Amino acid sequence: MINLFEKKIKEHEPLKDAVLIEGLPGIGHVGRIAAEHLIDEFNGEKVMEIYCSDFPPQVNVKPDGSVEFMSNDIYLIEEPIPMVIIVGNTQSLSPAGQYEVSKRLMELGIEYGATKTYTLGGLGIGQIPTEDLKVYVASTSAEIAEQHKEYGVEFRDDNGSILGAAGLMLMFSKLNNIEATCLMAETIGYVVDPKASTNVLNVLSKALGFEVDYRKLEQRALEVEKLLEKVQLTQEESELSNENDDLSYFG
Amino acid sequence: MINLFEKKIKEHEPLKDAVLIEGLPGIGHVGRIAAEHLIDEFNGEKVMEIYCSDFPPQVNVKPDGSVEFMSNDIYLIEEPIPMVIIVGNTQSLSPAGQYEVSKRLMELGIEYGATKTYTLGGLGIGQIPTEDLKVYVASTSAEIAEQHKEYGVEFRDDNGSILGAAGLMLMFSKLNNIEATCLMAETIGYVVDPKASTNVLNVLSKALGFEVDYRKLEQRALEVEKLLEKVQLTQEESELSNENDDLSYFG
Amino acid sequence: MINLFEKKIKEHEPLKDAVLIEGLPGIGHVGRIAAEHLIDEFNGEKVMEIYCSDFPPQVNVKPDGSVEFMSNDIYLIEEPIPMVIIVGNTQSLSPAGQYEVSKRLMELGIEYGATKTYTLGGLGIGQIPTEDLKVYVASTSAEIAEQHKEYGVEFRDDNGSILGAAGLMLMFSKLNNIEATCLMAETIGYVVDPKASTNVLNVLSKALGFEVDYRKLEQRALEVEKLLEKVQLTQEESELSNENDDLSYFG
Amino acid sequence: MINLFEKKIKEHEPLKDAVLIEGLPGIGHVGRIAAEHLIDEFNGEKVMEIYCSDFPPQVNVKPDGSVEFMSNDIYLIEEPIPMVIIVGNTQSLSPAGQYEVSKRLMELGIEYGATKTYTLGGLGIGQIPTEDLKVYVASTSAEIAEQHKEYGVEFRDDNGSILGAAGLMLMFSKLNNIEATCLMAETIGYVVDPKASTNVLNVLSKALGFEVDYRKLEQRALEVEKLLEKVQLTQEESELSNENDDLSYFG
Repeated sequence: MINLFEKKIKEHEPLKDAVLIEGLPGIGHVGRIAAEHLIDEFNGEKVMEIYCSDFPPQVNVKPDGSVEFMSNDIYLIEEPIPMVIIVGNTQSLSPAGQYEVSKRLMELGIEYGATKTYTLGGLGIGQIPTEDLKVYVASTSAEIAEQHKEYGVEFRDDNGSILGAAGLMLMFSKLNNIEATCLMAETIGYVVDPKASTNVLNVLSKALGFEVDYRKLEQRALEVEKLLEKVQLTQEESELSNENDDLSYFG
Repeated sequence: MINLFEKKIKEHEPLKDAVLIEGLPGIGHVGRIAAEHLIDEFNGEKVMEIYCSDFPPQVNVKPDGSVEFMSNDIYLIEEPIPMVIIVGNTQSLSPAGQYEVSKRLMELGIEYGATKTYTLGGLGIGQIPTEDLKVYVASTSAEIAEQHKEYGVEFRDDNGSILGAAGLMLMFSKLNNIEATCLMAETIGYVVDPKASTNVLNVLSKALGFEVDYRKLEQRALEVEKLLEKVQLTQEESELSNENDDLSYFG
Repeated sequence: MINLFEKKIKEHEPLKDAVLIEGLPGIGHVGRIAAEHLIDEFNGEKVMEIYCSDFPPQVNVKPDGSVEFMSNDIYLIEEPIPMVIIVGNTQSLSPAGQYEVSKRLMELGIEYGATKTYTLGGLGIGQIPTEDLKVYVASTSAEIAEQHKEYGVEFRDDNGSILGAAGLMLMFSKLNNIEATCLMAETIGYVVDPKASTNVLNVLSKALGFEVDYRKLEQRALEVEKLLEKVQLTQEESELSNENDDLSYFG
Repeated sequence: MINLFEKKIKEHEPLKDAVLIEGLPGIGHVGRIAAEHLIDEFNGEKVMEIYCSDFPPQVNVKPDGSVEFMSNDIYLIEEPIPMVIIVGNTQSLSPAGQYEVSKRLMELGIEYGATKTYTLGGLGIGQIPTEDLKVYVASTSAEIAEQHKEYGVEFRDDNGSILGAAGLMLMFSKLNNIEATCLMAETIGYVVDPKASTNVLNVLSKALGFEVDYRKLEQRALEVEKLLEKVQLTQEESELSNENDDLSYFG
């Protein structure tokens, strides 16, 4: 049995006609970093923590000697537009947990005033990109997806899936008669990718009609780029050295 | 805990003395393609979608930018005979989910008027067949199974099992005092196999006394055959080339 | 969630002061064959089938075209002494299923009159035995275990465990204030072993004070012995041939 | 569904202002041995056994022919200070079981008078240590963690986690408004480590203000050290012999 434990952090009136934005951990942490950036830039206020018996059975240790629980958290933003942001340090481990948590998060989002949903995620391309990274869209209806084309997004033609909360919250939105859209930014896949988060926020902010200051994200993206250059160099060296190894092996 | 979410798509009176036909995804998608062909040919009407917290925690992306939920669906057909068709894009992931969903689908089938059950599936032979593919039968009673011999089916003597909904809906039929029969068509196992679906429908339609137009299935079967020929050629080339590799490796 | 489905096969008065005997499938099917032999010899009557959503999600196909459901079954025997026999073709797949089913089987056993429990199992030795196979005992109390020494059983000193129903029904007996004993017969481990079943029944019948006709078991044991001799021969040949292979490989 | 079965072993009044101390099995059995030593030295009295359908589905066989059930046990100590000790021979197997059991153990601890929590564990270093083994601390608040620095503990800076009951009982303490601290002693990781248990008890006893007689633990630690020396010798020999093997292999 999946049990959810909810802890109210702060009383808060429901928002009016808010957008629910989901950014839980996933590929490249694209959605998580994007959602955390919104909370950071627009002074999001934490109103609830949700714990679940299907989250990893652990606590995380912080450098100051305190511990952090595994949780999904709800933040509210009032300006520039009302937003209910879902972030956290984990997703459920089993299918049943995924369904239960997404269903409950959607209910809570609606209680806090959400009338529209965006889920944010990454789409791993498995290599260091050689051209501009795209953002893909998928919605609960083809019409809604189509409307996003003017913001520079594309449709996927890979017969693929959207895994976890980013997918299931589309489903539970629809079952609650709320339109929902997933924005997926291409990303390498094996490193945290603030550049992809910028790409996804760029589309989101156009679609919702507000401005975002990307400077902090750009700073983080620069740091990651430097890191990747190093990794690439090391890999090339290592491949060279492997070639030598291979030669000597057969020589 | 396995949760089922049911969404009524259309109100519909129960059918009279209907046959429940299960064609959920399985080996070679034999049952699924057969059941979808019946829906297609006889204008089946979707009356219900069933979602389950034990289905894969994802949504599928369609080329038009919309998403498809993981579901098992109930269609009703009135002519040539009343049928309750169970299809879908998934089966449950865990044993408990398999039991819960099969049990519920059987209950719903009975509510929609089913008094007899057929489950359709494939039996993988693991290789490209060299002779005519057989259809096997297994029923909730030896007598019922025996009655199907006149339609060209055989009995299995492999001490084998019928996995998933195709097996469990026999059980839940019997527990509801309804006779049930599984038709299993031999199939390669690793490709979608419309030819096996034709074989299974051929037996089913004889047993139930109606005609099926197989032209669309035959068209799909031809396409798959061409694909298989290509695969076979590539494999033979690849084996030749592997032999060379092996020789060079030791040479 | 683990669900149990119970089907009463026949109404029957509870027995008086009966012994519950568990022989579900396990190592060498020692307990299962022993329990089935008792049912066979003493005309056990099936009174209930128990299905569980944690059993393998399948049905088994029989050569006569009918199917067999996965179940645990309760048989009653009145003479030579009252017995409640638990047999079946499966055990639960998950820990939770194991606990739920053992708990429920114990409750049902008590409802049918059990006041004492024996669980029967095998202890795999992983090789074809070179000396007489032993029978080990473990009970809910050291005193009860000690009382069995006069029937030729020994205590285990391997810090080992008793897995599945054979272990958990000891626990649920004790929690219901019923003494329980597990008899474990040494067995090769990878073949069905009617000889080990004879050994375990030999102890059980002495402890409970009745006679068993072992002729059918001895017949089956002879067949297995012949099979094993063949396997052994084949293995020896194969080892010889492997040696040659090895030599040629380095030669 | 996770089911808990609770068995009261002895009636006992709740303690006043007690410390809950968790020492369930984990890395190097550090916490378990430490907690059992407290029970041993201060005459802890067992008041409750908790069984769970998510524990391993087995019973353990003891050399006297009796069996031991898988359980988590609550002991009470009155002097030198009131303590509620949690020990046992297992932890839950699944995340849901971990959460359910930790939640329930915390509730029971509070019913028995706990107003503060310590969880004890090991931190595997993966090798035979070359210097003094440290003890690390993590608490439900940075302030509480800081207060422990005077007892010689350090903060972890590895971005790591605390798995199982030692982590989750911090969480369920906090959700019950009780401060909680985890003490983690460095340990080799693959052997039972009474020395690490001594280290952890050393900090605990200073923090709680009582004296512990470590002689029995020191005796056990000596035995383990001798064992490790033997293992180390054998490993060195084996590495030498492997080198030879390697040479002969290519020679």
